[in-house]
Amino acid sequence: MSANGEPSLTASVVGGSGFTGGELLRLLYQHPEFEVTQATSRSYANKTVGHQHPNLRGMDLRFSSPEDLDSVDVLFAATPHGVSMEHIDEFQDAAGTVVDLSADFRLDTEEQYDEWYDGHDRPELLEQSEYALPELNRENLEGADLIASGGCNATATIMGLLPLFEEGILSGDEQIVVDVKVGSSEGGAGGGEASSHPERSGVVRPYAPTGHRHEAEIQQFLGADVSFTVHAVEMIRGASATCHVFPDGPVSKGDLWGAYREQYEDEPFVELVAGGGGVYRYPEPKAVAGTNKAEVGFELDPANKRLVVFSAIDNMMKGSAGQAVHAANVALGLDETAGLDFAGLHPVGSP
Amino acid sequence: MSANGEPSLTASVVGGSGFTGGELLRLLYQHPEFEVTQATSRSYANKTVGHQHPNLRGMDLRFSSPEDLDSVDVLFAATPHGVSMEHIDEFQDAAGTVVDLSADFRLDTEEQYDEWYDGHDRPELLEQSEYALPELNRENLEGADLIASGGCNATATIMGLLPLFEEGILSGDEQIVVDVKVGSSEGGAGGGEASSHPERSGVVRPYAPTGHRHEAEIQQFLGADVSFTVHAVEMIRGASATCHVFPDGPVSKGDLWGAYREQYEDEPFVELVAGGGGVYRYPEPKAVAGTNKAEVGFELDPANKRLVVFSAIDNMMKGSAGQAVHAANVALGLDETAGLDFAGLHPVGSP
Amino acid sequence: MSANGEPSLTASVVGGSGFTGGELLRLLYQHPEFEVTQATSRSYANKTVGHQHPNLRGMDLRFSSPEDLDSVDVLFAATPHGVSMEHIDEFQDAAGTVVDLSADFRLDTEEQYDEWYDGHDRPELLEQSEYALPELNRENLEGADLIASGGCNATATIMGLLPLFEEGILSGDEQIVVDVKVGSSEGGAGGGEASSHPERSGVVRPYAPTGHRHEAEIQQFLGADVSFTVHAVEMIRGASATCHVFPDGPVSKGDLWGAYREQYEDEPFVELVAGGGGVYRYPEPKAVAGTNKAEVGFELDPANKRLVVFSAIDNMMKGSAGQAVHAANVALGLDETAGLDFAGLHPVGSP
Amino acid sequence: MSANGEPSLTASVVGGSGFTGGELLRLLYQHPEFEVTQATSRSYANKTVGHQHPNLRGMDLRFSSPEDLDSVDVLFAATPHGVSMEHIDEFQDAAGTVVDLSADFRLDTEEQYDEWYDGHDRPELLEQSEYALPELNRENLEGADLIASGGCNATATIMGLLPLFEEGILSGDEQIVVDVKVGSSEGGAGGGEASSHPERSGVVRPYAPTGHRHEAEIQQFLGADVSFTVHAVEMIRGASATCHVFPDGPVSKGDLWGAYREQYEDEPFVELVAGGGGVYRYPEPKAVAGTNKAEVGFELDPANKRLVVFSAIDNMMKGSAGQAVHAANVALGLDETAGLDFAGLHPVGSP
Repeated sequence: MSANGEPSLTASVVGGSGFTGGELLRLLYQHPEFEVTQATSRSYANKTVGHQHPNLRGMDLRFSSPEDLDSVDVLFAATPHGVSMEHIDEFQDAAGTVVDLSADFRLDTEEQYDEWYDGHDRPELLEQSEYALPELNRENLEGADLIASGGCNATATIMGLLPLFEEGILSGDEQIVVDVKVGSSEGGAGGGEASSHPERSGVVRPYAPTGHRHEAEIQQFLGADVSFTVHAVEMIRGASATCHVFPDGPVSKGDLWGAYREQYEDEPFVELVAGGGGVYRYPEPKAVAGTNKAEVGFELDPANKRLVVFSAIDNMMKGSAGQAVHAANVALGLDETAGLDFAGLHPVGSP
Repeated sequence: MSANGEPSLTASVVGGSGFTGGELLRLLYQHPEFEVTQATSRSYANKTVGHQHPNLRGMDLRFSSPEDLDSVDVLFAATPHGVSMEHIDEFQDAAGTVVDLSADFRLDTEEQYDEWYDGHDRPELLEQSEYALPELNRENLEGADLIASGGCNATATIMGLLPLFEEGILSGDEQIVVDVKVGSSEGGAGGGEASSHPERSGVVRPYAPTGHRHEAEIQQFLGADVSFTVHAVEMIRGASATCHVFPDGPVSKGDLWGAYREQYEDEPFVELVAGGGGVYRYPEPKAVAGTNKAEVGFELDPANKRLVVFSAIDNMMKGSAGQAVHAANVALGLDETAGLDFAGLHPVGSP
Repeated sequence: MSANGEPSLTASVVGGSGFTGGELLRLLYQHPEFEVTQATSRSYANKTVGHQHPNLRGMDLRFSSPEDLDSVDVLFAATPHGVSMEHIDEFQDAAGTVVDLSADFRLDTEEQYDEWYDGHDRPELLEQSEYALPELNRENLEGADLIASGGCNATATIMGLLPLFEEGILSGDEQIVVDVKVGSSEGGAGGGEASSHPERSGVVRPYAPTGHRHEAEIQQFLGADVSFTVHAVEMIRGASATCHVFPDGPVSKGDLWGAYREQYEDEPFVELVAGGGGVYRYPEPKAVAGTNKAEVGFELDPANKRLVVFSAIDNMMKGSAGQAVHAANVALGLDETAGLDFAGLHPVGSP
Repeated sequence: MSANGEPSLTASVVGGSGFTGGELLRLLYQHPEFEVTQATSRSYANKTVGHQHPNLRGMDLRFSSPEDLDSVDVLFAATPHGVSMEHIDEFQDAAGTVVDLSADFRLDTEEQYDEWYDGHDRPELLEQSEYALPELNRENLEGADLIASGGCNATATIMGLLPLFEEGILSGDEQIVVDVKVGSSEGGAGGGEASSHPERSGVVRPYAPTGHRHEAEIQQFLGADVSFTVHAVEMIRGASATCHVFPDGPVSKGDLWGAYREQYEDEPFVELVAGGGGVYRYPEPKAVAGTNKAEVGFELDPANKRLVVFSAIDNMMKGSAGQAVHAANVALGLDETAGLDFAGLHPVGSP
């Protein structure tokens, strides 16, 4: 099922009824190179995709059972933690390229899964899989056949801090505090009492005060410990990371602009937003809602010898489905931005 | 300035710093057939368009003064009421096709402007201009050189009620109550105390209890009086019209499905949503946020011999900028849906 | 458990863990004449009331099982529809005065329950019970021993329309359309997918397009049919009724002020808000959030021979718990406003 | 003007039309010991207080010009920074006790005002004034005649960190990062483009990335530097401080409970909320909206040798008007909690 003329590749989505699955379907449906041939859902088999995702009412596709997977060029798995590692053989039988949006193949070693999750069923595959944060490691993604799309909060954090490490402004021994604010879509489509509208609305709620699992991804890729705290705020989409760091030596605004431009100047999905005029002077999730963009910015605090780095993404896009499609574009040799060019809306509310 | 390869037509936006102007710029920038050569703003001349519209930071264009208009194929005017009628000659000198998004050319006669507005400076042009609600009158728009894009609340209402008139279920003598709920972007980018965030948030506020000017458009096109009331609710984008009507004779669900399918079955921007399963069972603004779609649905109330018709649009899109681009597509012989294929987001908040 | 010095009466709340139960506990805890001796909850027995209701952390009371009811002066039942009619004998054994907040004893006849609900187990008690909307019928409440507190949407509607009937501006034969907008707390503390934060946020959702059960209460008390439609909007607390009516004869603003002043001038919980200056010119739910007040106002639409009446309440207060305490105050001969004097907040958000 | 029987003291509010002024009026109106005799407003002189504050429509008081101040027992000044220092003589002539809610008398020395503000007109009074954060220094407030009510973000921060200093867990040499999230009422009743509803809704916006003036208050009272960053989030009322601290030695949960209980066990306006069950497990602004309470809690992060302390207040109450009334209660020898016993609401939205 494609909204476009003549796509060149077939794609399927396992776990298509959840929020991330729906976002994948939307992106693939309007992608110039993909034709969606299958979307699976155990609970909604035989319902149209529009039954779950009102924005996809125009898409003529019904969910099918995950038991019977079509052969496709690329399979996207948008399933809860643990499902992909259990079904990875079926996924790889069905598709030459598998993009997993869960955490199942993000970490490098079984030991990390023992520490941060409940172990791993298929540790021998961890070496094969490629973590996907294309701005970080697109060279590894070309031709990759098992891709682990980076986590939302980790992506926001890594995007913010990476240039400081790359340019030697941070070495990894400094104190790094990351205070993240996220929207309710991070909790997925289920949800009990805490995510009911009356209880969840308007919160500033410490939902992962310490010990959030994305710390493991961040450590792995930055090679540094971060003190990580996540708050739920009033927003549906969006993750905003504020990184408070204390470099050893003096750092100027010019140093920072240099470091961030060096890293991101040519990146199609990164905007540097640091001061300037107007209403939107630093990164904000609502400015990137619905897009695959990351906004990154910073401010100096000389009195406290501190840098504050701000990073904002749409957790459903750059934090999951958009990043996965971006990675698939790279893996399959397509234009990186194919299907990901939506500019976002202004004005827009709690996105 | 175009995000695409080789656009065939040039376009400009007069009044580009406002909300509607920004939405036009976004649509035209990503439109396959238009290149934006100019966006004017008196207040922000020489600032980048991204200064006002953070979603357009990637667009390499600065506002220019409205004094000096480029020659273009199509000029869109997104200016407050009264500006277009004053500058219409300049607009028509600059462009073969002028699409006005204000109310200045929507009504047919000077008398209507005397009654509902403060008269009209150029009444001789009213006959020349074509009201644009393409689902209603696309045949008039082909080749039109002065187009008055339909108003947001009028569009939502007319889209909901039109099939009942076309199919003879309503004659125009019946009692028609239209209760509209709108978002804060209808108030535009200015805003005083009443539209400040602390005062405007969370309201259900009767902002036009009676006498809203869009009544005139509705009367003109439906040929019937409507009792019209507009409430501001917590939403940025969106207009939702609930039409309570009392047909003279009995009406069945089958009659209604017949009437609405007849009218809208082949329309690319209309979705019929009336009952069924899932969470989204009737039209809702958030299901169409960011898109040019109208959702239309209905329910029977036999006990009260009433029909309730629901209609939902994004006031910035189907209610203004999207409708204007749709009309321009028709006027210039382009694919009707060109540049307007964004499917919308799920989930999405107060859009 | 009382926050005050020496209360004179004991009270209990059956169903204390739900939203309405929590609101009752808050009101009774700070009420000068009541001591709360028991709050029941099957699911949360032995948990503190503050476990469910964070605003009541200071209250030293634990939920007990509903099996074993204390003897009290007044028992408030905040249980789902059907529970009170099943347990009414136990309730009446435990307390001389029973105030039921469900719909179980609101209607007069078994036939009405057959039509609007699933029949009634104890129809012989319907005659004994008194519907409580004190502004309507406080004289019946004095000394009443079984009180059925009026429903939220019905209360908003009746408060708006009553003066028109009392003063003969409406006779009951006219077309009456009532378009109600409500917050998510009306759905109670449970909630599935439709009331999860990502799906419920920012909606204008027709949730009871036709056939809402509160129509029965309104018909019963106004003696007129109303065409009733309820929308869910972005709000936690609040119900706003917009009543569109078409009187037979001419009506002036003076007539309306006369009718509404006559009815409400001396009412401690009613504010007339109709035009005037400032930001808050008509009734708004957020202006009464947390209070037992109803705001009522109106506007004339001479062109359509229409009156529009606006009415706004907090559905948790004037629409349930506050109204129940108000009724108990009257029944027990206390000061009507005792425990209900909170003025509300400004500014306040989606309340 | 008092809602109560026989108040013993007279009070006035200078700057009564702003948000903080309105909150003071509400509190004083329902306070058992105060009669409000005057509320001033230059812009709204002769309008009723209900014109600006819809919750105060029942209060029979009109704004008067600030030129002519009544003699009262206590005058509250809710004016912008700089006004109180200019008019302090008039204030002190009018009232034996002046409570200033601005920053004009919070800091100890002229040097601090030179560094953080634009100097000070009346530095000789700085020694006379008492900073009011009653949990910190109530002993200084008894009988004080010039009181500087603590700032909202400073109050949230100090409330969170104070026990760590008092108990020696922090010495002041450690790295302290404070990441604050605040609602839009902090910006006051004015507001330009950035605080218009469409632009301000749904934000996570770094509005004071570094250099916020409340750092000065915090430094002064904790005797330690803090790295302070403030974000605007979707909320009207509320300030939430997340303090990330790195003690030199090991700290256990027991140590923390000990420190916080020692400090706050007997405080009527402080709730310790740290883990436990239910939905509300850490401090949250919406749980204290409308109240004078501060919620304080903490969590250990042994992997990073970090403590995270959470603190939540209503910026309009414990962060300004409530704190001011609390301080006046202490200064005048009244019951500390008089007029401040509202428990808050559940559920409640973006408060």
